[in-house]
Amino acid sequence: MNERSPIQVTIYNEFVHERKDEKVQAVYPDGIHETIAGFLRQQPDMQVRTATLDQPQHGLSEEVVASTDVMLWWGHMAHGQVEDEVVERVHAAVLGGMGLIALHSAHYSKIFKKLMGTACGLVWREANEKERLWVVNPSHPIADGIDRYFEIPQTEMYGEYFDIPDPDELVFISWFQGGEVFRSGCAWRRGKGWVFYFRPGHETLPIYHQPEVQRVIINAVRWAAAGGRATVTGIESAPNVRISPEGVRQID
Amino acid sequence: MNERSPIQVTIYNEFVHERKDEKVQAVYPDGIHETIAGFLRQQPDMQVRTATLDQPQHGLSEEVVASTDVMLWWGHMAHGQVEDEVVERVHAAVLGGMGLIALHSAHYSKIFKKLMGTACGLVWREANEKERLWVVNPSHPIADGIDRYFEIPQTEMYGEYFDIPDPDELVFISWFQGGEVFRSGCAWRRGKGWVFYFRPGHETLPIYHQPEVQRVIINAVRWAAAGGRATVTGIESAPNVRISPEGVRQID
Amino acid sequence: MNERSPIQVTIYNEFVHERKDEKVQAVYPDGIHETIAGFLRQQPDMQVRTATLDQPQHGLSEEVVASTDVMLWWGHMAHGQVEDEVVERVHAAVLGGMGLIALHSAHYSKIFKKLMGTACGLVWREANEKERLWVVNPSHPIADGIDRYFEIPQTEMYGEYFDIPDPDELVFISWFQGGEVFRSGCAWRRGKGWVFYFRPGHETLPIYHQPEVQRVIINAVRWAAAGGRATVTGIESAPNVRISPEGVRQID
Amino acid sequence: MNERSPIQVTIYNEFVHERKDEKVQAVYPDGIHETIAGFLRQQPDMQVRTATLDQPQHGLSEEVVASTDVMLWWGHMAHGQVEDEVVERVHAAVLGGMGLIALHSAHYSKIFKKLMGTACGLVWREANEKERLWVVNPSHPIADGIDRYFEIPQTEMYGEYFDIPDPDELVFISWFQGGEVFRSGCAWRRGKGWVFYFRPGHETLPIYHQPEVQRVIINAVRWAAAGGRATVTGIESAPNVRISPEGVRQID
Repeated sequence: MNERSPIQVTIYNEFVHERKDEKVQAVYPDGIHETIAGFLRQQPDMQVRTATLDQPQHGLSEEVVASTDVMLWWGHMAHGQVEDEVVERVHAAVLGGMGLIALHSAHYSKIFKKLMGTACGLVWREANEKERLWVVNPSHPIADGIDRYFEIPQTEMYGEYFDIPDPDELVFISWFQGGEVFRSGCAWRRGKGWVFYFRPGHETLPIYHQPEVQRVIINAVRWAAAGGRATVTGIESAPNVRISPEGVRQID
Repeated sequence: MNERSPIQVTIYNEFVHERKDEKVQAVYPDGIHETIAGFLRQQPDMQVRTATLDQPQHGLSEEVVASTDVMLWWGHMAHGQVEDEVVERVHAAVLGGMGLIALHSAHYSKIFKKLMGTACGLVWREANEKERLWVVNPSHPIADGIDRYFEIPQTEMYGEYFDIPDPDELVFISWFQGGEVFRSGCAWRRGKGWVFYFRPGHETLPIYHQPEVQRVIINAVRWAAAGGRATVTGIESAPNVRISPEGVRQID
Repeated sequence: MNERSPIQVTIYNEFVHERKDEKVQAVYPDGIHETIAGFLRQQPDMQVRTATLDQPQHGLSEEVVASTDVMLWWGHMAHGQVEDEVVERVHAAVLGGMGLIALHSAHYSKIFKKLMGTACGLVWREANEKERLWVVNPSHPIADGIDRYFEIPQTEMYGEYFDIPDPDELVFISWFQGGEVFRSGCAWRRGKGWVFYFRPGHETLPIYHQPEVQRVIINAVRWAAAGGRATVTGIESAPNVRISPEGVRQID
Repeated sequence: MNERSPIQVTIYNEFVHERKDEKVQAVYPDGIHETIAGFLRQQPDMQVRTATLDQPQHGLSEEVVASTDVMLWWGHMAHGQVEDEVVERVHAAVLGGMGLIALHSAHYSKIFKKLMGTACGLVWREANEKERLWVVNPSHPIADGIDRYFEIPQTEMYGEYFDIPDPDELVFISWFQGGEVFRSGCAWRRGKGWVFYFRPGHETLPIYHQPEVQRVIINAVRWAAAGGRATVTGIESAPNVRISPEGVRQID
C-alpha cells in the first residue's frame, strides 16, 4: 500500500500556440507541457514524460501509451490534426485503466468527446475576468489542500450549458465575474479508467503557474492513477461462458 | 400538458436473422421490428414507422430521423454494416433531444457505443435459462405496471461486468439461473436526449411477445419522449458571448 | 395516460413572518402559501390546499397527508416548532410515494434534513443582489419553459458548500453578484417519493410573483407527482420470504 | 502522501447473540468484533479498538468518537437499545469526516437509517444458500484484489427492493441461489464522511473468516479514511457572509 512504484505520467500538448505567438511564449516559454511537467517532476511519486503533436504518432506510440499510468491532455487549435489511430489507442488505454486529465480547451479534443459520447460544447468569452472555483465535494481527494474556494484573477470564461454526461463526481463549480457558472472539475469512470476534466488554463494567462491550480492537477494525477490498480480481468472482451456441473459459471 | 401530439416512433431492425433462419422466422415471421411495431401501434399516443438495414440509408434518412421522437434499435449480426454517416445522424439527433431505446444485442451497436464512450462488453451464454428482472427503482416511470420483479422463462444470459458508464438511473437488475447478474434496465441523458438500454430480447425466443416486456418497452417510449420537449436553445454550438454594459451576459 | 385525476397539492407555510412584519405583509398579504396557491390553482390538473403551523397538527393530519400527492414546504423562523410526530408522518408519506418540494429556507426544516441525512448548512447574505439560475440539465421536465438561464433581480444569497447528498439530478446552478454559486435546483428519490429543493424565495422580496419562478414550481409539482404512481408493493416492510418448490421465490 | 499516521479504527458490535447462543459462540467465540479486529490488527496502517452495547455510552464516548477515523458497525437484535445521544454523536462525526462501514444487518441500525433518510427495508431468507458477489465497478478501490466475482458458499439472503437512496457508487451486486439479487456493496458521501454498506455477514455462519470478505472490509477501511483528510472548513455551520469592498466574499 505504501510503497507503490512511481506514477508514470505523460503530458500531451499540441504545442502550436507557443511557437507562433509571442504572447504565449512569454508565459510558457518551453510550452505549456513543460510548465506542467515542471511542477509534476517535483513530486517524488511521479515520473513525467511529454509528447507533442509534431512528433511521430504525436509522441504517443504504443510503447508510450502502454507504459503510462496517467495522461494529461492539452489541445486547442489543432484537435483535428490528431490522428484517429492515436485517439483509438488512448481510448483503449483509458478503458483498460489509464487515467486521463483533460485540461481547459481539451473539452473539444477527439479523445474527450469520444469518452463522453456528447458534443461537449459550452459558451465562452475572453475578457480577462475573475473566476472563483467553489468546492462542492469537500472530501474529494482532488480538492485536498483547497478550502471553500480559490480564485483565478484573470481568466477566459467557460459557461453552461456544458454538454457533458452528468459527472459521476462534481468537485468544482466556477463563478465568473461576467455572470456565468461552470462545472469546472468533473470526474467520470470509463471502463477501468478514471477521467477528470479541469477547466482552468489559458495559453496567454499564467494560470498553470498558480499554486492552487498546480495543487489540483497534482491531486488529480494521484487520484486518476487508481484505475490501473484494478484486478478485475477480461472486461475488454465479451466472452461466452458456460454453466459448470454444479451450477457454477465458468469463463471458458 | 394533456394534449400532446402523438409520439413519433421509428423502429430500426437490421432484419437479417429473420430472412435466413427458419427458427427466427417461426417466432418473428415479419421481423422483430414488426412484432414491436404491433404492440406500439396499439398505443393511441404513438405513431410508428420501421426501418431496416437493406433500405437506402437503412431507412434512416434525414427526413425520417428529423421527424422521430423516439427510436428503437435492434441489431445483432450486422452492426458493422451500418454506415457511419447514419450513425452520426442518429447521434446528433439524440443529442438534440430524440429518445433512443437500445434493445438486447444493441449493446454492441455503433450508435450505443458512441453514446456511451465505452466498449460495452459483457459475458453471455445461450442455455435457455430462467431470468428474473428485479425493480431497483420502484417509482421510475419505466417500471410502471411491474411489481417487485417479472420473469422470462427462457432467455439468453448476459452477465456482468457490463462495460458501460454508471447509469444515471438503474431500473432493473437481472438474476439468471446459471449464476450471473446484469444491469438490465439502464437510463442515461446525453445532450438533450434520453437513452434507455433494455436487455431482454432474443431472435429465437418469443420474448417480445411477453406482456411484461411489452409493457416496459411502451413505458420506455413514453419516458424517452421527454428530451424532445426541452426548451433550452443552442447547446449544440460553442458560442462566443460578451458581457453587456450592465454586467449582464448576452449571447451575441 | 392522458386522463389522470388532478394532482392533490398541499402547501405548508409556517405563516409567522407574514403576521409580524409589515414588510412581509406588503409582499405576501395573505401569506406566502396563498401566493403559491394562487398560481397553482390556475392549473387545471391541480387541486390545492394549504396548511399552517398554528393549525391543529399544523394542518397536516393523517387524512390530509394521506390524500396529498405533492406537498410544498416553506419554513424559516419556526422549524423547531414543527412537531416530530408530524415530521414522521410526512416522512413516511414521502417514502410511500408523496412528492415533496422544499422551498428556500426549508433547507433547514426537520423534514428536509431527515430525508437528506446531512446537516444541510450553507452560507448566506442579505444584500438584495442579482441571481441567475443556469440550466445544467436542459431536458429535465422541471426546466421546461426556461431557456439557458433566468434572473432574479434582487435576492438573498445562498452559497456553497451546501451540505446535501449529491443530487440524483442537478437542474439549476445559481450565480450571485457577490461571488458565490449554489446548487439551486436539486432532485432526489427517497423510497418511492420524489423530492425537489428549489432555492429561490424570500419573505420580503416578490420572488414568488415572478413568472419564471412560478413556472419552475408548477413544473416541479407535475414532476413530483410521479412517485405516487409506483406499482411496486411492500417496500416499507422487510418481509421474510421462502424459496418455492420450483426454486422460485415467493413473498409469504 | 506516503507516511500517513495509522488509521484509527473503532469496531462497534452490539455483542448480544454471542453471549446467548452457543451456535454463534462456536463461530465467533470472542464476538464478531474480535474476529473483525483480528484481521484488521494485522494491517500495519491500522490501529483498532472495539466498543460494545453494554459499555457506558456503548463504548462510544466523545473521546472515542473524536479520535476515530473509520467506524465499523454491527448490530442486529438490539438496534433499539442504542441511545439517541450516541447516534447523534456518531452522525455528527460522519458529517465531519469519519468513515462508516455498515455491515449486514446494520442496514436497520439507527445510524444507517439516519444517514440514508429512508426506511432501509429489504426482503430476507435464511436457507443457507449460495451467494455470488459480482463486481460492477471494476476499478473501485474497494474491489481491489477481487476478480469478476467471489462466492459465499452458505449465506442468509437479502433481496431487493433495498430501500436506500441510489448509491453514489455501486461496487457489488449479489446473486442468490434462490432467485434474488441485491446491491451488496454501496458507497455514499454524507457531509465529509464516506459511508459504505457491505451486505455479507451472519452470526451463525463463518463469513467474516472468509479471505475475500476480509479483503473487502480491509479495502473499505482504507477507502473510508479519505473523508478525514478534507481541508474545507466550516461546513457544519450556516455562516452569514458579506461582500468585501472589492466585490469579494469573505466569511465574517
